[in-house]
Amino acid sequence: MTTLTQDQETKVTAETGSPTISTRARSTQDSPIRKLYATAMLRKEKGIKVYPLNIGQPDLPTSPVVFETIRNLKLSTLSYAPSNGLPQALQAWRDYYRTFDIDLEEREIIVTTGGSEAIIFSLCSVCDYGDDVIVFEPFYTNYNGFASIANIKLNPIPLKIQDGFHLPPASEIEKHITSRTKAILICNPSNPTGTIYTREELQCLAQIALKHDLFLLSDEVYREFAYDTPVTSVLHLSEISDRAVVLDSTSKRFNVCGARIGALASHNKEIVQSAFKFGMARLSVASIEQLALVPLLTSPRTYTQPIVDEFRKRRDVVYHDLASIPGVTYYMPEGAFYIMVGLPVKDSERFARWLIEEFEHDGETVLLAPGPGFYATKNAGSNEVRLAFMLQAGELSKALVVIKAALSSYRQ
Amino acid sequence: MTTLTQDQETKVTAETGSPTISTRARSTQDSPIRKLYATAMLRKEKGIKVYPLNIGQPDLPTSPVVFETIRNLKLSTLSYAPSNGLPQALQAWRDYYRTFDIDLEEREIIVTTGGSEAIIFSLCSVCDYGDDVIVFEPFYTNYNGFASIANIKLNPIPLKIQDGFHLPPASEIEKHITSRTKAILICNPSNPTGTIYTREELQCLAQIALKHDLFLLSDEVYREFAYDTPVTSVLHLSEISDRAVVLDSTSKRFNVCGARIGALASHNKEIVQSAFKFGMARLSVASIEQLALVPLLTSPRTYTQPIVDEFRKRRDVVYHDLASIPGVTYYMPEGAFYIMVGLPVKDSERFARWLIEEFEHDGETVLLAPGPGFYATKNAGSNEVRLAFMLQAGELSKALVVIKAALSSYRQ
Repeated sequence: MTTLTQDQETKVTAETGSPTISTRARSTQDSPIRKLYATAMLRKEKGIKVYPLNIGQPDLPTSPVVFETIRNLKLSTLSYAPSNGLPQALQAWRDYYRTFDIDLEEREIIVTTGGSEAIIFSLCSVCDYGDDVIVFEPFYTNYNGFASIANIKLNPIPLKIQDGFHLPPASEIEKHITSRTKAILICNPSNPTGTIYTREELQCLAQIALKHDLFLLSDEVYREFAYDTPVTSVLHLSEISDRAVVLDSTSKRFNVCGARIGALASHNKEIVQSAFKFGMARLSVASIEQLALVPLLTSPRTYTQPIVDEFRKRRDVVYHDLASIPGVTYYMPEGAFYIMVGLPVKDSERFARWLIEEFEHDGETVLLAPGPGFYATKNAGSNEVRLAFMLQAGELSKALVVIKAALSSYRQ
Repeated sequence: MTTLTQDQETKVTAETGSPTISTRARSTQDSPIRKLYATAMLRKEKGIKVYPLNIGQPDLPTSPVVFETIRNLKLSTLSYAPSNGLPQALQAWRDYYRTFDIDLEEREIIVTTGGSEAIIFSLCSVCDYGDDVIVFEPFYTNYNGFASIANIKLNPIPLKIQDGFHLPPASEIEKHITSRTKAILICNPSNPTGTIYTREELQCLAQIALKHDLFLLSDEVYREFAYDTPVTSVLHLSEISDRAVVLDSTSKRFNVCGARIGALASHNKEIVQSAFKFGMARLSVASIEQLALVPLLTSPRTYTQPIVDEFRKRRDVVYHDLASIPGVTYYMPEGAFYIMVGLPVKDSERFARWLIEEFEHDGETVLLAPGPGFYATKNAGSNEVRLAFMLQAGELSKALVVIKAALSSYRQ
């Protein structure tokens, strides 16, 4: 009975004297993935070894070619780059896409500050206030923040762990479409599930997009991380070349998360022009990193192939070892470097907190990302956690031993 | 009679088959400053010398310390920085502010991707859909783009060239405040006018902010460019320390436009926390540039003092030489590196186009930024142009000779 209504909350804040911040700012969540981080640090200080399975920051070194390129840049002035990207960068992105049989011209690409900006620009380009975008949940938790900045609504459709988080039939998806739905936003391969949508699933989405006059926005930042069969891009589907938009990033594939270089690409001129206009407002993307990534974009596989082989090994170990833990629900993730696991617990947030605050097994514990942070629907994912494969295979195995021990001694 | 209503426009686009983009994307303007650029390039190819007075990209070299720092960075992995900024960067920003007698803690600062992101975060933090922010026009044209991304309204109050674009009395400002006004956004020193608001003017705005429960957002990216007296920051006004927000950028003062490093700073915890949450959504700001700017932020004046002296010389030359052109209206800009000039023409866009397309004086012409691009009010600024001081004093003098000759032979 101590919960305040929104009006009361506003009043209370006003009484302190300062003007109130916006409702969207108040309702934007802290990163749920980072929540338990401070506790983990305290635990480490006490000598407990913590396996960090919570966050998708690749643990492998950045290719030295990035740093070499930067050291060799001959610049005397750091001036604004063109708002759509430096010509060399645009050409490198075009070359990159051609290695995946995606045929784009430079003028169909906008270089962005990370994949994040590409997503924000795409949402602003297709939605006005009150419009919504379909997402499949569990979804990348930062989509909430992007929706808040762009001031649009996410329209979540739940997927099931039993289906390996593959898509439901068209009829089920169509039920969620409203008069204000402007687009479907997918993450393929998916963060947080590791699911790769098949060509048939994408064709089904394409048909829905055509029938209901929607854009299909596809966050393909994990494109390379496909362990069994290659990823179909929305730009491979000629039937929707007028409404498919790729949102991209170099962060994960080249392990350059701190470079903040992404891209938006589409054959739809209006979308590209619109992203260009939003790009003009923010002037340009960091020049040094645009240039630093040219070599890797121009010949990506030399760097990504060994990394993907490494992550395949890790996925296989996690999948194999999960079989030895009683009561867990899981599936074979086809890509990315995550898996959502159903645990035999009622409240995975409580379990994750207990793990990091109290539990230890031979001086070790595990940091997990609780499932609810990846869902918009209330109480969904409450027994799930996301595991990120950011440790070598042997370490991942040990982390799963700790989880198994924790589950057997956990009192709900 | 050929103008389409919005409904008709939607229908026409729909008939082409693709889904329609958002109204905000359609209504976001192309950068008016960059519009005539392509024409200027063509003219150059024909051997005409073009003086570029249209754009605020500093022409002086970046301090070599930036490139040295980058070359000496010992990084093996380009990982995400913390969403509020690298600790070294936050400390450098704190030190920077202390050289201006602005006392901030690291936790009161968020490092942003350029000043642009700081402005977008501040607008999202104080406004929901339908809310408005007061701006004084003429204003920095990209505020339109930021408002479109953040999905908020600008509420423009016109200033007068005869007043040197200083503020009107409080009563005049208060007339524009609506029930949805959440903040006043100023640019001080101002782009595009070069005006520096006096402490009294800022105190007047502070009183209005207190009386009407508004935030005072201050874009102070030209802080150093103050030729006669130093700039008063909104963070110098203790009476509004709970509602003053500084939006900042290193681009102009250190001539590092391509680095994209800015900041948001405030004593208001909610605002900083809100910017931090939006920051978490976009993960981080480029690590290399955050580190590269630490030396300049820590001891800024060594680099900025000679630059400011150079720009003062340029301002003085422009002010002096304008006196010899019949029929122009102008004033002494106190800061930044711009001046708005009233010309004896009816339509400055037409004049600027004619200058760059047709006119030449001894094989030379001038590229100007037409006034209307800096106004939201229709037909405002139609006889004005913005001049940017991006040439050395001697060249600026020659450019003004060209403008004088052009005006005397121009047929309206």
